[in-house]
Amino acid sequence: MNSPTPLVPLLEELQAGDLEALTRGAAILGTGGGGDPYIGYLQLREVLRANGPVEVVGMDKVPDEAFVLPFAGIGAPTVSLEKPDDLESIHLLAAVLERRFQRKPTHIACLEIGGGNSALPVIAASVLNLPVIDGDAMGRAFPEIQMVLPALYGVNASPLAVVDEKGNSVLVEATSHLSGERFARAVTVAMGCSAIMACYAMTGRQARDSFVPASLSKSVALGNTSHAVLDPGQIPFAIADFLGGRVVFAGKVTDVDRSTSGGFLRGVATISGLDNYRASSLELSFQNEHLAVVIDDAVITTAPDLIAVVETSTGNPITTENLRYGQRVSVVTAPCDDRWHSPEGLELVGPRAFGLSYGPVRWNGQHTEGTV
Amino acid sequence: MNSPTPLVPLLEELQAGDLEALTRGAAILGTGGGGDPYIGYLQLREVLRANGPVEVVGMDKVPDEAFVLPFAGIGAPTVSLEKPDDLESIHLLAAVLERRFQRKPTHIACLEIGGGNSALPVIAASVLNLPVIDGDAMGRAFPEIQMVLPALYGVNASPLAVVDEKGNSVLVEATSHLSGERFARAVTVAMGCSAIMACYAMTGRQARDSFVPASLSKSVALGNTSHAVLDPGQIPFAIADFLGGRVVFAGKVTDVDRSTSGGFLRGVATISGLDNYRASSLELSFQNEHLAVVIDDAVITTAPDLIAVVETSTGNPITTENLRYGQRVSVVTAPCDDRWHSPEGLELVGPRAFGLSYGPVRWNGQHTEGTV
Repeated sequence: MNSPTPLVPLLEELQAGDLEALTRGAAILGTGGGGDPYIGYLQLREVLRANGPVEVVGMDKVPDEAFVLPFAGIGAPTVSLEKPDDLESIHLLAAVLERRFQRKPTHIACLEIGGGNSALPVIAASVLNLPVIDGDAMGRAFPEIQMVLPALYGVNASPLAVVDEKGNSVLVEATSHLSGERFARAVTVAMGCSAIMACYAMTGRQARDSFVPASLSKSVALGNTSHAVLDPGQIPFAIADFLGGRVVFAGKVTDVDRSTSGGFLRGVATISGLDNYRASSLELSFQNEHLAVVIDDAVITTAPDLIAVVETSTGNPITTENLRYGQRVSVVTAPCDDRWHSPEGLELVGPRAFGLSYGPVRWNGQHTEGTV
Repeated sequence: MNSPTPLVPLLEELQAGDLEALTRGAAILGTGGGGDPYIGYLQLREVLRANGPVEVVGMDKVPDEAFVLPFAGIGAPTVSLEKPDDLESIHLLAAVLERRFQRKPTHIACLEIGGGNSALPVIAASVLNLPVIDGDAMGRAFPEIQMVLPALYGVNASPLAVVDEKGNSVLVEATSHLSGERFARAVTVAMGCSAIMACYAMTGRQARDSFVPASLSKSVALGNTSHAVLDPGQIPFAIADFLGGRVVFAGKVTDVDRSTSGGFLRGVATISGLDNYRASSLELSFQNEHLAVVIDDAVITTAPDLIAVVETSTGNPITTENLRYGQRVSVVTAPCDDRWHSPEGLELVGPRAFGLSYGPVRWNGQHTEGTV
C-alpha cells in the first residue's frame, strides 16, 4: 500500500528561493543523518546559479517505463562534512551504470531524505540535465543500503556503483542487499570514508509503488515552517505539529561520545533537562542517524520512527556529526512511513537491526513489539 | 628488455602427468605464497579429468591482437586453504570483464606463479575452453596487485574484477594500481578474505613485452627435478642449482608468529640450525610470500629475489600458511627476473615496499642499494 501524498504545496521545480528551506527541512526528516544541510545548500546554490532551476516530477507523473536512478552520499558524515562531493564524480557514476544497464537514466531520485542527501540528487539532476522525482526511498534517512522501502518490494540494490572524487569507480553486483552494503561500505572506507553512490536503479512503476511521495515538497514546506513562527520558543512545537509528532524533551547537550569506524559515525549523546521538564536526562544513540531516545532509563522512541534534534531557539536541525556540548536543543519524535512498521520493515530498520537490545517504540511511546 | 626463455622442455599442453610437478614447482617459485600446491593439484586434476588436457601457448606464439586475461586468487592463504575456489565464479569473472570490455578473452594467463595461482588460470582456461599462456606477470608470487611487471610497462590493472563463491562480483576501475589494490583488497576482506580476480587485461603484444616467459614449463621441470634426485639430502641443492641460486640454511622451524589481517597473512618464522651450519638462527619475514631472510642479524636475501623454504628430505615447498613448529627445512635463495632490480622494480617490490627497514639484498648476499 502506497503512502498518501502529504498536504503540502507540490513543487514543479526547485528554484533558488527553495534551497535553504529544502535542505533544512530535509535535515529534520533526515533524523540526524543524511549529511550537513549547510554544505548541501551551498553546493545546490552553486549548481543552480550555473544551470538554473531543476525540474521536479511528482510521483504520479513518473511513467511506468522510466529508468530511475537514486543517488546518495555514502560514508560517515564526520568525513563528508570535510570532503564535499565533486561534480565530476556525478558524471562518472552515471556513466558506469549507464554502461552496465546499456540505458541512460530518465529520472534522478533521492535514495533518502537528509540535508546532504536531498541536495546531491538535485545537483545530479541539474548536472545530468534530467528531472528529479519528488519522493524518496525511505521517507527519512537510514545508514545502510538495504534500509530502503524498495527492498521490501523486491527491487535489487545491485548493480550499484560507488565513485570517489579521484575518478575511481567500483561497480558492485551482489546477490543480496546485505552483501551489497558490505562491499559498498568496504570500498567507501577504502575511498576515505565518504563517496557517492547510485543504487536500486528501477523502473518508474517500481518507484511509484515503493517510494515515499512528495519528500522534496514536504522538506521545503517543513523548512519554511520554522520561519513562519514568530515566538522562537514555539518553533520545535511547530515542527512537531507539521510532522504529526511531539516534542519529548528540551535541554542542553552535556556529553557526546562519538567515533568514526567501519564507515559509520556511531555514538551516544546525553541531553540534560534545564527546567520545566520532569525528566532529568535524555540519552540519544546514533549510527549516522538517531536510533533511540531513552529518558531516565525509559525507551521513549526508536527507529524507524523519526527522531529529530533541533536547536530550541531556531528549529535548525542538528545532525549527529554536529552535536556539541552546550547546544540548547529540543527533541522531536514523529511517525515514519507506515510500511516501516510491517514485520519485514522492522526487521530491516527496527532498533534490533542496529544492535540495540530492545524492540521498537513509536513516536508516541507505544510499544509495537514485545516489551523493553 | 624481455627475459630469455629458460632452457627447459616447453609444454604444448598440460596433461594429467604434469599436474603434480606443475603445482610443486610453481610453489617453489611462489616463494611461500601463491596458494597451497596440494589444493591446486586436486582442483586441477578434477578439471582435467572432466575436460581433458589444456592447450599451452608459448609466449612467442601469442598474437599481437590477442586479448589476454590474467587470473589469480586474492586474499590470505590461511583462508584460501580452507575455502577453495569455485568453478562457477570463473564463468562469472570472465563474464563481468567480457561485458566491460565488450570482448571475449582469447588467452588466459597466470598473474603470478604459485601452487594455487598456477593452477587457477589453467583451470580457468579449461573451464572457458581457451588456451593458457606459458608465462606469468611476476616470475614468482607477490602479495599485492601493483607488484607485477606489466605495471612497469604501463599496463593498467583496471578494469579489474573480483568475485566470490556466492555469485557476488565487483568491477573496479581505479586511476592507479595502488588504488586498484586498495579497493580489491577491501572487497576481498568483505568477501571473507579469499576470492578470485582477473586484472591487467592486455593485448598479446603487451603480454609478450612484459611477461616472464615459460613459467609453466619451468614449474613442471622444477617440480620434476626433486623426483630425479636419489639422495634426499641433495634435493634442496638440486633445486638451488635449477634456479641458479644457493642453499643458505638448513634447520628446524622453532617458532611461527603468524596473523591474518587486512586481507593478508603476515608474520615471522624462526628456523634454528641443527648442526653442520655456522649460523644458529634464521628469521624469515613474510606477507603471504617470504620477504627477507636474516641469519644471526645479517640480512642475507630480500625480495624481489626468490626465497623458497622446502622440506629438507623431499624438496617439497612449504608455503607461509603451512609453516609449522618442528618442520626440517632448507632455505633456498635464487635470482628473480632481472627487471625487478631496476629502480622502478625495487620501488614496487623491494623490501621497503613491504615496510622493512633495509634495502634489497640479492640471493648471493650482494647489496644492490645502500647498506643494511
